[in-house]
Amino acid sequence: MDFELIRSLNRPADTKMLLLVLDGLGGLSIDAQDLTELEKAETPNLDELAQKSICGLHQPIGPGITPGSGPSHLALFGYDPVRYQVGRGVLAALGINFDLKQSDVAARGNFCTVEKNGKVTDRRAGRIPSEKNRELCEKLRKIDIPDVEIFVDTVKEYRFLLILRGENLSGSLTDTDPQNTGLKPVPPKPLGSEARHTAEIVEQFIDKARDVLAQDHPANMVLMRGFSQKPDWPVFPEIFGIKAAAIAAYPMYRGVSRLVGMDVLETGENLEDEMETLEKNWKDYDFFYFHIKKIDSAGEDGDYNRKVALIEEADAAIARIMKLKPDVVVVTGDHSTPSLMKSHSWHPVPVLLWSRYCRSDSVNRFGERACMAGGLGPRLPTIDLIPLMMANAGRIEKFGA
Amino acid sequence: MDFELIRSLNRPADTKMLLLVLDGLGGLSIDAQDLTELEKAETPNLDELAQKSICGLHQPIGPGITPGSGPSHLALFGYDPVRYQVGRGVLAALGINFDLKQSDVAARGNFCTVEKNGKVTDRRAGRIPSEKNRELCEKLRKIDIPDVEIFVDTVKEYRFLLILRGENLSGSLTDTDPQNTGLKPVPPKPLGSEARHTAEIVEQFIDKARDVLAQDHPANMVLMRGFSQKPDWPVFPEIFGIKAAAIAAYPMYRGVSRLVGMDVLETGENLEDEMETLEKNWKDYDFFYFHIKKIDSAGEDGDYNRKVALIEEADAAIARIMKLKPDVVVVTGDHSTPSLMKSHSWHPVPVLLWSRYCRSDSVNRFGERACMAGGLGPRLPTIDLIPLMMANAGRIEKFGA
Repeated sequence: MDFELIRSLNRPADTKMLLLVLDGLGGLSIDAQDLTELEKAETPNLDELAQKSICGLHQPIGPGITPGSGPSHLALFGYDPVRYQVGRGVLAALGINFDLKQSDVAARGNFCTVEKNGKVTDRRAGRIPSEKNRELCEKLRKIDIPDVEIFVDTVKEYRFLLILRGENLSGSLTDTDPQNTGLKPVPPKPLGSEARHTAEIVEQFIDKARDVLAQDHPANMVLMRGFSQKPDWPVFPEIFGIKAAAIAAYPMYRGVSRLVGMDVLETGENLEDEMETLEKNWKDYDFFYFHIKKIDSAGEDGDYNRKVALIEEADAAIARIMKLKPDVVVVTGDHSTPSLMKSHSWHPVPVLLWSRYCRSDSVNRFGERACMAGGLGPRLPTIDLIPLMMANAGRIEKFGA
Repeated sequence: MDFELIRSLNRPADTKMLLLVLDGLGGLSIDAQDLTELEKAETPNLDELAQKSICGLHQPIGPGITPGSGPSHLALFGYDPVRYQVGRGVLAALGINFDLKQSDVAARGNFCTVEKNGKVTDRRAGRIPSEKNRELCEKLRKIDIPDVEIFVDTVKEYRFLLILRGENLSGSLTDTDPQNTGLKPVPPKPLGSEARHTAEIVEQFIDKARDVLAQDHPANMVLMRGFSQKPDWPVFPEIFGIKAAAIAAYPMYRGVSRLVGMDVLETGENLEDEMETLEKNWKDYDFFYFHIKKIDSAGEDGDYNRKVALIEEADAAIARIMKLKPDVVVVTGDHSTPSLMKSHSWHPVPVLLWSRYCRSDSVNRFGERACMAGGLGPRLPTIDLIPLMMANAGRIEKFGA
């Protein structure tokens, strides 16, 4: 969808939309039963809603492409995920919910092992535990470089996040990771004159990090990758002319929502907390993105039964949501995470769209195979969902006379 | 569809194609019955044809976008409606079937009310009746400007059409409508040097209109918008290598057909008149666009039962059409007009394509939900229809060896 076109056709309306994302919803059947997790789950509320909805399967990126959570959410929010790519450093910052400013430069760091001659012997420093990582980040934080503020945060195991904050910074730098052992770390190269200053700062940081970590073998050096800045994208509320809020417990999803300009509401860890946040804020927004994470984690763990149980738990929330009298509801996932594969997958994701004007199809239960026959088709581009929600909410003008 | 490609693959054949457009065909169900207008209608002829056809639903512009009649017809004729946009002035000219020349400049006019100080107090002159409009247009027609021919025509109520005909004219001008009351009309600004001459002419026209209308309060001034020229587009018969005729009673549809270079046949107001025109001209063309308007009007009026009855009336025409032994028949609408919504809508439009070679699917009746399961899919881009008709008519060469 062309943002210019949709922006030119926005019109206000007194309607409320809810996008309910069950993370990693799509699945695969296990031989003996031949039912996917969603097909196996008892979901009376979703089935009833599916009967009154238009259903289908959506494809986040392209045929055969398995999406990461960042791109699949951008697609759900209407952004072409191939065109709107986030730098790796920025993605790491979003992943730990770091409040990135437009001029900050973010990079991913690895703790690594170097020999006396400076050559890398282990690019992951023996996969040190996160606890050790936190100690080392504490040391890196003490590095002082004139005119620039430095933030260092633990991501996980050997991975950390570096943020540089100051004037005239640029993310157009090459990685310092030599990619192979037996080579020395590479000095960062500016990809344009505007990044020369930043390259000097990064060199200073690396030199000082080498000194600070000298006694911390195997984690006695750092490799930096994915230098990037927060992109200057059109923002969701402006493109679609709506007031939008995100309800998500996990940092990554809060980060992506903030990136596209949604208000990220304070909420707790559990579905119950999220439901309360929704109810409390219902009157203040036109659009809610509501994220339920744990279904994906069960899929990643290969735990078919837990994934089934968590889908059933989400189903129970539907009745409570419908009591709020939304005008448009979409229930779907951001991607598939079949427990059979223990990972994200490329399979299209079941989706239902309900509104008074949705033109319901003949699908009468919510499941992968049932949705294949739905009116949205078996591979709707994911980016089409928001325009369809907008239309069902009476928020798009006629195109041409 | 890329015109270059299809043009390079055209081949002649002795076959006849008919595109039957039931305006505003698509609908929505009404709660008690859960049947759309088309599903409710008794359509034995369409159902029999659907059984032998490949069916589906087509999407004129994009997901969630409600099409105007102009863009949706351009899509039916194979033109990407976002790329091929018609200026508002030209569209108004088409709407009253004015025979626009390539070099003419067309604009939409409003009669408006101005105070003594020249400021606009009502941009629509109290919505004067069309009869008054006709009187005022008569006066405007008497305006004389050297080197340019002026046509003025009533559209409806406070709206009229202005056409300038002469040499070196350009439609690259800004509107004179200040958009708000309390402001004076804005002089037209040329958007490039090629439009300076036209801007001067328009200024003269406006000055003289002010004089001519001085005594006609509340319609004592004009505001001009949407200056444009007939676009220089590739024409339908040349792109597809066919002789094409349009049979349509309403000006707007005759205008769009003329715009893409079809022969617009003289016909009467009713379906019976149109059928006779078709039969009389059958031997002379390869392709007929045949338009039935009133189904849309019933939808716009929110009259479910009348829409049902009019669909049944159109159904009766099918048998008579098939007696002409066409090689390819498409029956569809240009957009949906659900009587539930009393307006055009974004919902995909039922379509059937019949030919000896169509590869019929399992759809055995013509309706929204039945067509969702058809071989053309539930959201075929509308611009794909003409190439499919051409292929079924044996008029597209093999691509590559």
